[in-house]
Amino acid sequence: MTAPIRTLNERVGLRKAVDQRDPAELGKELHAFAAQLYPICRSISGEGIRQTLELIGERIPLRKFSVPTGTQVFDWTVPKEWNIRDAYVKDSSGRRVIDFQKSNLHVLNYSTPIRASLALSDLKSHLFTIPEQPDRIPYRTSYYKEDWGFCLSHNQFLDMHEGWYEVCIDASLDNGVLTYGECYLQGQTSDEVIISCHACHPSLANDNLSGLTVATSLAKLLSECDRRYSYRFLFIPGTIGAITWLARNQDAVGRIRHGLVLTCVGDAGGFHYKKSRRGNAEIDRAAEHVLKHQAEPFSILEFSPDGYDERQYCSPGFNLSVGCLMRSVWGRFPEYHTSADNLDFIHPAQLAGSLRLCAAIFDVLENNRKYRNLNPFCEPQLGRRNLYRATGGDAIGEEISARLWVLSLSDGEHSLLDIAERSGISFPRICEAAEQLREGGLLASI
Amino acid sequence: MTAPIRTLNERVGLRKAVDQRDPAELGKELHAFAAQLYPICRSISGEGIRQTLELIGERIPLRKFSVPTGTQVFDWTVPKEWNIRDAYVKDSSGRRVIDFQKSNLHVLNYSTPIRASLALSDLKSHLFTIPEQPDRIPYRTSYYKEDWGFCLSHNQFLDMHEGWYEVCIDASLDNGVLTYGECYLQGQTSDEVIISCHACHPSLANDNLSGLTVATSLAKLLSECDRRYSYRFLFIPGTIGAITWLARNQDAVGRIRHGLVLTCVGDAGGFHYKKSRRGNAEIDRAAEHVLKHQAEPFSILEFSPDGYDERQYCSPGFNLSVGCLMRSVWGRFPEYHTSADNLDFIHPAQLAGSLRLCAAIFDVLENNRKYRNLNPFCEPQLGRRNLYRATGGDAIGEEISARLWVLSLSDGEHSLLDIAERSGISFPRICEAAEQLREGGLLASI
Amino acid sequence: MTAPIRTLNERVGLRKAVDQRDPAELGKELHAFAAQLYPICRSISGEGIRQTLELIGERIPLRKFSVPTGTQVFDWTVPKEWNIRDAYVKDSSGRRVIDFQKSNLHVLNYSTPIRASLALSDLKSHLFTIPEQPDRIPYRTSYYKEDWGFCLSHNQFLDMHEGWYEVCIDASLDNGVLTYGECYLQGQTSDEVIISCHACHPSLANDNLSGLTVATSLAKLLSECDRRYSYRFLFIPGTIGAITWLARNQDAVGRIRHGLVLTCVGDAGGFHYKKSRRGNAEIDRAAEHVLKHQAEPFSILEFSPDGYDERQYCSPGFNLSVGCLMRSVWGRFPEYHTSADNLDFIHPAQLAGSLRLCAAIFDVLENNRKYRNLNPFCEPQLGRRNLYRATGGDAIGEEISARLWVLSLSDGEHSLLDIAERSGISFPRICEAAEQLREGGLLASI
Repeated sequence: MTAPIRTLNERVGLRKAVDQRDPAELGKELHAFAAQLYPICRSISGEGIRQTLELIGERIPLRKFSVPTGTQVFDWTVPKEWNIRDAYVKDSSGRRVIDFQKSNLHVLNYSTPIRASLALSDLKSHLFTIPEQPDRIPYRTSYYKEDWGFCLSHNQFLDMHEGWYEVCIDASLDNGVLTYGECYLQGQTSDEVIISCHACHPSLANDNLSGLTVATSLAKLLSECDRRYSYRFLFIPGTIGAITWLARNQDAVGRIRHGLVLTCVGDAGGFHYKKSRRGNAEIDRAAEHVLKHQAEPFSILEFSPDGYDERQYCSPGFNLSVGCLMRSVWGRFPEYHTSADNLDFIHPAQLAGSLRLCAAIFDVLENNRKYRNLNPFCEPQLGRRNLYRATGGDAIGEEISARLWVLSLSDGEHSLLDIAERSGISFPRICEAAEQLREGGLLASI
Repeated sequence: MTAPIRTLNERVGLRKAVDQRDPAELGKELHAFAAQLYPICRSISGEGIRQTLELIGERIPLRKFSVPTGTQVFDWTVPKEWNIRDAYVKDSSGRRVIDFQKSNLHVLNYSTPIRASLALSDLKSHLFTIPEQPDRIPYRTSYYKEDWGFCLSHNQFLDMHEGWYEVCIDASLDNGVLTYGECYLQGQTSDEVIISCHACHPSLANDNLSGLTVATSLAKLLSECDRRYSYRFLFIPGTIGAITWLARNQDAVGRIRHGLVLTCVGDAGGFHYKKSRRGNAEIDRAAEHVLKHQAEPFSILEFSPDGYDERQYCSPGFNLSVGCLMRSVWGRFPEYHTSADNLDFIHPAQLAGSLRLCAAIFDVLENNRKYRNLNPFCEPQLGRRNLYRATGGDAIGEEISARLWVLSLSDGEHSLLDIAERSGISFPRICEAAEQLREGGLLASI
Repeated sequence: MTAPIRTLNERVGLRKAVDQRDPAELGKELHAFAAQLYPICRSISGEGIRQTLELIGERIPLRKFSVPTGTQVFDWTVPKEWNIRDAYVKDSSGRRVIDFQKSNLHVLNYSTPIRASLALSDLKSHLFTIPEQPDRIPYRTSYYKEDWGFCLSHNQFLDMHEGWYEVCIDASLDNGVLTYGECYLQGQTSDEVIISCHACHPSLANDNLSGLTVATSLAKLLSECDRRYSYRFLFIPGTIGAITWLARNQDAVGRIRHGLVLTCVGDAGGFHYKKSRRGNAEIDRAAEHVLKHQAEPFSILEFSPDGYDERQYCSPGFNLSVGCLMRSVWGRFPEYHTSADNLDFIHPAQLAGSLRLCAAIFDVLENNRKYRNLNPFCEPQLGRRNLYRATGGDAIGEEISARLWVLSLSDGEHSLLDIAERSGISFPRICEAAEQLREGGLLASI
């Protein structure tokens, strides 16, 4: 069975589908899902990420994969699985001065288990604070070097007096599995768009519950539409997850036409789109075009080999066309990787706005095609096809201008996105013009 | 017989020929010709355009062509011929409240004949005004949808009281011909430059009597010079004229190397050159270079598929190297397509300045060649050829600098225009340097 | 015997070698050498340039070449040799009102001998002054037109009363030789870098004793290092020297990979690097990169066919990748070619800074290579190679960033300079990262 091809008005409709929802309600839904995920202590393996995938799987079809500890993935090895039940530092009076139950950021993520009594002087080298932000707990990890530690606010640290402390990290670091989830939506072609989110950070809202919730909604939305492309949503542990996925799917990456890493899309900042390593991939151009034709402030960032999992997708052996969409940029906002990246830091309206933006980008990818002007010698007479204004002499509007642009550049060389870029007219308007001209017999799809 | 090749001083001489005339007198001549053409009620067919071609033909050799109604030209059909004798709207007292004899803009151009008595309420849908410019009569047309109407100032309209009006348009719309004129000037080669002007607008001065008069003078000037290129001046009805010409000359357009649409070149605004669809054609670069080296303000506009007959010449099937020279840009000045685009709106000095600019552009096209430095290893000793200053140690002037640039870049890859662009030195100066070096045996034409 | 390949820390070490010297002392040394050369009356041939080469030869290995008068070199002929012993203009009281012994600029360089008694009115046409700078003696030459003359300050000229003057130029202009010097430093390959300085100007400090002294020190420095490239330093008379050298080495210029003309590098102005005719040669990019990553103000100038001996190296038949490094640009500073370009006009710190800049540029050329990432699929695990930070969660520094950039772009297409340009990280840092990755087995030289 071949999938029915939707008419254009339906096809540029992913953003329209978003717009049919009440934005306030949509934002609330996204934020509520983030709130549900927030308390879970996630890491790159273990129960936390499994619970997270469970909750995502309640919303969209999700297939989970488990990869055993010790599996070689390119230059890396899947690490032991980490699980934690409790952790604290008690003072001599038995009071928990650092308590994992209050915030899962308090434990150095991937800490080895420990039970010991230590003088403060010996404990200090295992304590992490941010003196410049004395009220905030930092988020720190030690995945690949076995170590243990506690993170706490600098003020908390200053309150700790000399003396002996009881230290407990009730965790396990044993052979187990690395877990990730895939939501695959088959389209008309097997050409694929991947959307990748890291799902390994504990109670941090913008980085990256925002990405998880927006991606989940996007998958839901796409699952209800006809799709030219197949879409694969990856909910994976950062770095090791992307590397593991690529190692296990090395032969299949040739299907990937476009990709997007989604993260930090819930805060109040303007958009930042970081280009793929290629720099002029269709996803890069689609994202920039859509950003130019919307109202929020934005910046386009050139590719750099630091950041999120685009690092792996864009590594030189793969060099995939994968960009990264953010609002505030990792490392550049003071709440980054601290306890201040909490549920107050992300906003319903911003989450909904990010969803809408992604929808508009995918609308471009879905509908970007080349057409051939069937009447390339001089303009066709649009008037007798009701595609022009009847009385001459006054100005023509953008609607007619879009038709003239499509006719002028549909020479087999220019895609609709090319035409949108060169004309300065928004992609949906160009797309609509192309459809009208096609219906009028003036244009053929190539 | 091979045509004699002029020496350089003669060859960069089109602008020089203009400069030998008294600018005030030249401007007056151009304006006087516009004044002579102004009263005629032109349209895309009929007596008006034939009279216009007659007057142009008194000044330059002009061949007229007639194409019968009904002829298929690409996607279009040559329309019926329109002629008008009189038109008015009389109020109940018999007073002509709208009178074609006062301004031929008063009639919707291409109106079908009508004689009727109508209540104002029924008449209203046939009346066109510009409320934002209440003193001006708009120019409106209905070439391809049979209709009738009157154009009037909004103040005039507000003065019309309820009641009955006698409406008369004494026009005919019958089988006939579409007429256009060509002035062809054979050059040393059959490679061709076309200059195209629409000759179909009634009493509108800038759009496009300015273009007609400047083009006529240019043709006169060129007819008196040796020409490398052949020149073809087209005086045609807008849109349908260009389409008709292209349809009848489809096999011959391969000869066209460069082209220019001339319109709106008489008002007080700075120059606007709109690039061809190719965007970097030689005419585009020549026009930009000349504009940079003259004193009036100017802007370079990217190609867009709206505008004048460059729309047809640059349609994707032809994609000719045709740009458009204007002063104020159509649709962007308030007088556009209103009765305020009258003989006061165009100025002798501006008409003469436009003529001079065109001359300079054609000087570039005529003289742009590639040369080969016959002494490419190190500089030749210019001093012993009297092409350098004798005493060393002080600065060299632009004259010597131009020679060094020509020598440096005459490697078979760079044309004189390339050299002028890269050096920032004006084309005539570069051209003069090339001629001196050629005479000095240091350069050979390729 | 193959030359040992230095380790990286040694190899980006030309600038480091400069930095190991006390800058004040280094500057003093350079200035002292300029002071030693200053009094000599140099010209494009004769004893002055031979003495100059003698003094340079005391510091670095220098081979001298003599080319007889009358030798044809491309379009030019090696001129007669000029030597001068004394010159003066005496007034009627026997006082030397113009005296070569006080400044060798007083004589029009290459003056023919004369002994005569002349009225001031007849003498005037042989006197050169700069009325706009009345205190300064101009530097003027007449190499290729036999003439004699005196240069003097305009104030001096105004003091000369009507009357008779005894004129003497005790010079000779006879068959002889044109002399130049080469310092050739063989490197690991015969691919060559040329550094060219004109050595023909008399008592002018910036133009070009600054170039001679910096080049001499550079040659000394390079002679003490392992070199990938062979280096050839040319100390030659301007124009005719470069033409002569090119004529005699025409078959060997294919070895030249990069080149630099050094002049006016001692004054207080910011740097100016003038690009080669190619415009994007490796030397052009290396110079621009180094200039961007140092503290002094600078400008990049596009190529033009005037200037110094880059005129000859970049002539279209050769089109070598030779740029020109200056501080203030010839002809644009008022002291240019006047007696004010003296030893006070050049400064020890500026001479040392220019040397340091050249060293940094050559460090780029020496170390610019392409590498291949041996682990191109995903990032390699830098952590277990001690090339990453151990605790995750906080920012990565430029050191790690440089490694990620090198890995990302070492796909066989990008050189280290490409990577430095794209990342915005300085070349030495990129180079260091490449070496660490190579040592870590992650990168192979191509």
